[in-house]
Amino acid sequence: MRVDVGELVDRARAGQHRAIARLVSLVEDAHPQLREIAAALTPHTGHARVVGLTGPPGVGKSTSTSALLTALRKAGLRVGVLAIDPSSPFSGGALLGDRVRMGEHATDAGVFIRSMATRGHLGGLSWATPQAVRVLDAAGFDVVLIETVGVGQSEVDVVRLADTTVVLLAPGMGDGIQAAKAGVLEIADVFVVNKADRPGADATVRELKQMMSMARREIRGPSWRQPVVRTVASENDGVDDVVTALDQHHDWLRAYGELDRRRAARAAGEVEAIAMRQLRAELEELRDGDRLAQLARRVVNRELDPYAAADAVISDLRRSRGGGSQG
Amino acid sequence: MRVDVGELVDRARAGQHRAIARLVSLVEDAHPQLREIAAALTPHTGHARVVGLTGPPGVGKSTSTSALLTALRKAGLRVGVLAIDPSSPFSGGALLGDRVRMGEHATDAGVFIRSMATRGHLGGLSWATPQAVRVLDAAGFDVVLIETVGVGQSEVDVVRLADTTVVLLAPGMGDGIQAAKAGVLEIADVFVVNKADRPGADATVRELKQMMSMARREIRGPSWRQPVVRTVASENDGVDDVVTALDQHHDWLRAYGELDRRRAARAAGEVEAIAMRQLRAELEELRDGDRLAQLARRVVNRELDPYAAADAVISDLRRSRGGGSQG
Repeated sequence: MRVDVGELVDRARAGQHRAIARLVSLVEDAHPQLREIAAALTPHTGHARVVGLTGPPGVGKSTSTSALLTALRKAGLRVGVLAIDPSSPFSGGALLGDRVRMGEHATDAGVFIRSMATRGHLGGLSWATPQAVRVLDAAGFDVVLIETVGVGQSEVDVVRLADTTVVLLAPGMGDGIQAAKAGVLEIADVFVVNKADRPGADATVRELKQMMSMARREIRGPSWRQPVVRTVASENDGVDDVVTALDQHHDWLRAYGELDRRRAARAAGEVEAIAMRQLRAELEELRDGDRLAQLARRVVNRELDPYAAADAVISDLRRSRGGGSQG
Repeated sequence: MRVDVGELVDRARAGQHRAIARLVSLVEDAHPQLREIAAALTPHTGHARVVGLTGPPGVGKSTSTSALLTALRKAGLRVGVLAIDPSSPFSGGALLGDRVRMGEHATDAGVFIRSMATRGHLGGLSWATPQAVRVLDAAGFDVVLIETVGVGQSEVDVVRLADTTVVLLAPGMGDGIQAAKAGVLEIADVFVVNKADRPGADATVRELKQMMSMARREIRGPSWRQPVVRTVASENDGVDDVVTALDQHHDWLRAYGELDRRRAARAAGEVEAIAMRQLRAELEELRDGDRLAQLARRVVNRELDPYAAADAVISDLRRSRGGGSQG
């Protein structure tokens, strides 16, 4: 169905949640007017601060996100949340999660929450997420929170989209920290030790600082000393300190030109993902024709090895007028 | 290190297991001489029957593979096994599994077993597995068994590489069958109900036949009636019936031209995966240059939307001399 993109973008920018949700859906479903949508959104982007929130299961991520939302709202900021839910191949679980968490924020026009399932996206999460961020950015949110479970590589990739990445931990998950360690130190801009009223909180903070001091020797470039903030998100304890840490990191990003660098890296990744998806679509079109079938038959008949056949496919793609079709 | 591909292929074709293992490793690691290896192997391929073996965890897949191996060996066939192990991102667990299972087959020169981890492959499993099949095919194995846990899409894709796909089930996993149902009916050429001495075996067979009769109405094309074989693999009971079913299916494949059709589809998939990987490598080279960074900066500055930038990237790739580099 043909969508009036201009009108939809206007409504989204006026804060209408249904229009925003519609745009995210269109993007997720790779609507044929994808290009038009991206072109209409792009001029309005660049305002939102993108904050990634990740950590192993059980650290209280949803509670922390909700508490952070409340704190940011108190500061007068409009906040969009993208919750990446790897456990939900379909949207069932994800949607339920939204409704539950929407609870206190449901009536707040300054908050928009959306779950994205990690499967079933044409082109994958690395393709869909930056596009969804663009929607929320263009819709005028001051902060876009991307919440993921920090387990797989794809979640880490998504967090790398952020200007600022918060890694959540909790006491008494010694093994968890060890397991998370490898990737976590690289990606964290701010550490939050949640459930800090529980036994073992001091040990967790100590362990974390120890890991950081060992790792710091190897870090190059402008230095940002990752703060370790203690919270009890369920009681809203320490959440203002998280907001302060986010602000400080944002100031630091601006001061050192790091914000532009990160956003350029994000855009580069997105452009690459779009190009890859476009090439894949062209390959798939080729599959529908005779050419690939002919080449495959020659491979089966041992007249051609598969690499030579792939070369032929690629030179076909090069020759083709290309572009267009998919969005 | 430069490899003498001709000599290695000769030794593999003479049945030397170390040479075969080396070739599979070179292929898995995307050795720079990949193209040369594929070209050297291709003329010797086309002999092996490729059999996929899949099913949910707990049905006794390893035991069944081992029993099937023994039965095929008794029939005088040389058998190569590729075990796809999604639980092992690295080779630790996989290798242990090999050693354990090699047990009774370890001294048998007519058997070659290799585990392939599903992660860490450049280009993914859909890329690496057909290449490994080619090695075993060229090395003169009569049958190549691909064993996977039938859970994820990638495992299903791998099974689709096979001439004949065996789906293993076991009694008392009602939910398991239901869960597996969606994909399983489409891909199975032969059903095996293992642990058939356990309570519930009759019910499982009945349920399966019911599902088949419902599905059959919708099936188009030449008809093959999927047999349901009962086994107790740990006792070698019924395993000869599986071999018979495999033979019958192979005869049917040949009689209806279906063997060629499936192999052409497999080759087409492989050619596509190689082409995709090649394009990805070219994109990555672009990332190392200035061009992508420049485009990304223009996206950040809102001068260009990411789709327009991706178009520019693709037209760069088209212009480039291309090819070469990776394999």
